[in-house]
Amino acid sequence: MAKHETPNPTQSEGVRTLSPEDAWERARTMVVGRLAFSSGERLELFPINYLVDRGTVLFRTAPGTKLAASMGRLKVAFEVDGYEADVREAWSVVIHGVLEPVLNTEEIVDAVALPLFPWQSGEKAFFVRIVPSEITGRQFLVADPGHWASQFMGGPRASGE
Amino acid sequence: MAKHETPNPTQSEGVRTLSPEDAWERARTMVVGRLAFSSGERLELFPINYLVDRGTVLFRTAPGTKLAASMGRLKVAFEVDGYEADVREAWSVVIHGVLEPVLNTEEIVDAVALPLFPWQSGEKAFFVRIVPSEITGRQFLVADPGHWASQFMGGPRASGE
Repeated sequence: MAKHETPNPTQSEGVRTLSPEDAWERARTMVVGRLAFSSGERLELFPINYLVDRGTVLFRTAPGTKLAASMGRLKVAFEVDGYEADVREAWSVVIHGVLEPVLNTEEIVDAVALPLFPWQSGEKAFFVRIVPSEITGRQFLVADPGHWASQFMGGPRASGE
Repeated sequence: MAKHETPNPTQSEGVRTLSPEDAWERARTMVVGRLAFSSGERLELFPINYLVDRGTVLFRTAPGTKLAASMGRLKVAFEVDGYEADVREAWSVVIHGVLEPVLNTEEIVDAVALPLFPWQSGEKAFFVRIVPSEITGRQFLVADPGHWASQFMGGPRASGE
């Protein structure tokens, strides 16, 4: 069960394991992450706009696959990553947990007041939480910062030669 | 089987479905995507550095979860997204397929010559392909470009008020 926790925080190849506290701290700095779950035989994978709230990952959604998954309390994985240009290190945080719809009126009122903007414009009337069972994080040196930076600029890949 | 294809490319809420050709074209412009698969009971989700090659998604890896998954020809989902600042639109492309290790010597020689830099520094001696069975893509207006941009700068979320 604890096989994903490394007692030694320093691993080979310039990879460091982040503490759960550090992993949460990083998750709080971002606004878009990727949510994965199995819906029947199919693996679903979406970018979502999220907010860390009450020890969970909160997001808004319209009726559809994600809302249905939350009603079924599906197991999910959620990943957030970022790049720290000053140290040329990237990090990746993965949260495992279950989806849960926010159905309590008071909680919905609180959630509406949060600075949570859906990435995609349009009506997203429902709130869903990822209730975490595990959080893991890694930080690692980036092999080619130029290539990573180009990703974050949304620019095209440089041609091969 | 075709339920994820919309005959009308214009959907509600400012979402457009991308053609498979357009989706591949966008996937080619990026270098980091997120790979999801189920390993036993566990959902795995990783950022990977990739290259579109021979109609597949090629990446490098070290011995571990991803290489083992490729040996087992596991079903995967792979997602890439980007933001086009000039039109304030974001897009997301999802490829479904199976992992396959690159074991053919000639193919390995060709792959080594490609401009494929592992995101994470360190030895990544093995090549793995995602052999696609389906590609889907969406483009959508971004509700709050400021928030999306801050993600891509790697900067912290602005405080609530």
